[in-house]
Amino acid sequence: MNDAMATARIEADPSVPVFRIVRDFAASPAQLFRAHTDPELFVRWVGPDGMTTTLDRWDASTGGSWRYLATRDGMRLGFHGCFHEVRPDRIVQTFTWEGEPDGVALQTLVFEDLGDGRTRLRTQSLCDSFEARDAWLRSGMEVGVDQGYAKLDALLAGGRVVGTEGAEA
Amino acid sequence: MNDAMATARIEADPSVPVFRIVRDFAASPAQLFRAHTDPELFVRWVGPDGMTTTLDRWDASTGGSWRYLATRDGMRLGFHGCFHEVRPDRIVQTFTWEGEPDGVALQTLVFEDLGDGRTRLRTQSLCDSFEARDAWLRSGMEVGVDQGYAKLDALLAGGRVVGTEGAEA
Repeated sequence: MNDAMATARIEADPSVPVFRIVRDFAASPAQLFRAHTDPELFVRWVGPDGMTTTLDRWDASTGGSWRYLATRDGMRLGFHGCFHEVRPDRIVQTFTWEGEPDGVALQTLVFEDLGDGRTRLRTQSLCDSFEARDAWLRSGMEVGVDQGYAKLDALLAGGRVVGTEGAEA
Repeated sequence: MNDAMATARIEADPSVPVFRIVRDFAASPAQLFRAHTDPELFVRWVGPDGMTTTLDRWDASTGGSWRYLATRDGMRLGFHGCFHEVRPDRIVQTFTWEGEPDGVALQTLVFEDLGDGRTRLRTQSLCDSFEARDAWLRSGMEVGVDQGYAKLDALLAGGRVVGTEGAEA
């Protein structure tokens, strides 16, 4: 794996209120798809170290919805959204942090097969203002992104993420 | 009612890939909410004259989803999305026209009580590029918007839209 992509690259778009995250994994697209849709796997890697994720609602299919709570040291954060589309190479979902209940981002995740058992994850988050986008970028979220993806690397390396046949479309 | 607002005003935002539609109705917020969430009412007004709308999926609640087909003269258009949030004063949903299956807009509808039995509907549609936004504005959609809202005016005037208590939060 290209070392430059072993940590996530987070970029703000200059012309639209979007930020993008790019990260490579030693995994197939089907494995990454499963890690983002299987509830038991998802809670094991998402978010920063020391945070515990509990699913309140999880239907990772087109037209489904989700809600989870992230807790650490008595602090509890809620997040929720709906799944606009869930398909093997692409997930489109809405995303709200409940501390800002009227703020909504539209997220698109793409699993890009690089061959040789490697996959590039591209995430795009679209906000309705540059202020909202920049607030996300200033929130310290890169810590959770990097630590979460490191946990996902470890799950993948441990053989805990089996790409399901349904995801190999 | 202010005549200037009896037809929809459609505006493109200069700095973000958003367009907004503003339209006043002789109705309460609860009536407008019901017209946008009750499946039997919704199909009676949405879209241009002569187009028949058939719901394929309709769960107008937070975390629900929708799909409808619009047909006229043998032409069939499909649209679908999920409901991020449905509450009496605000609906947030995703929106895809299936002719452009990877294009997704995030729509926010707000029902603003003007008093005296009048409500202002504000709709915001957020796209992920100016090209996508401008394609919507060039699509001729204003005909469907104006004719649809005129049908909704007629339903309201005919007493066919009763605001439900659940929407009076």
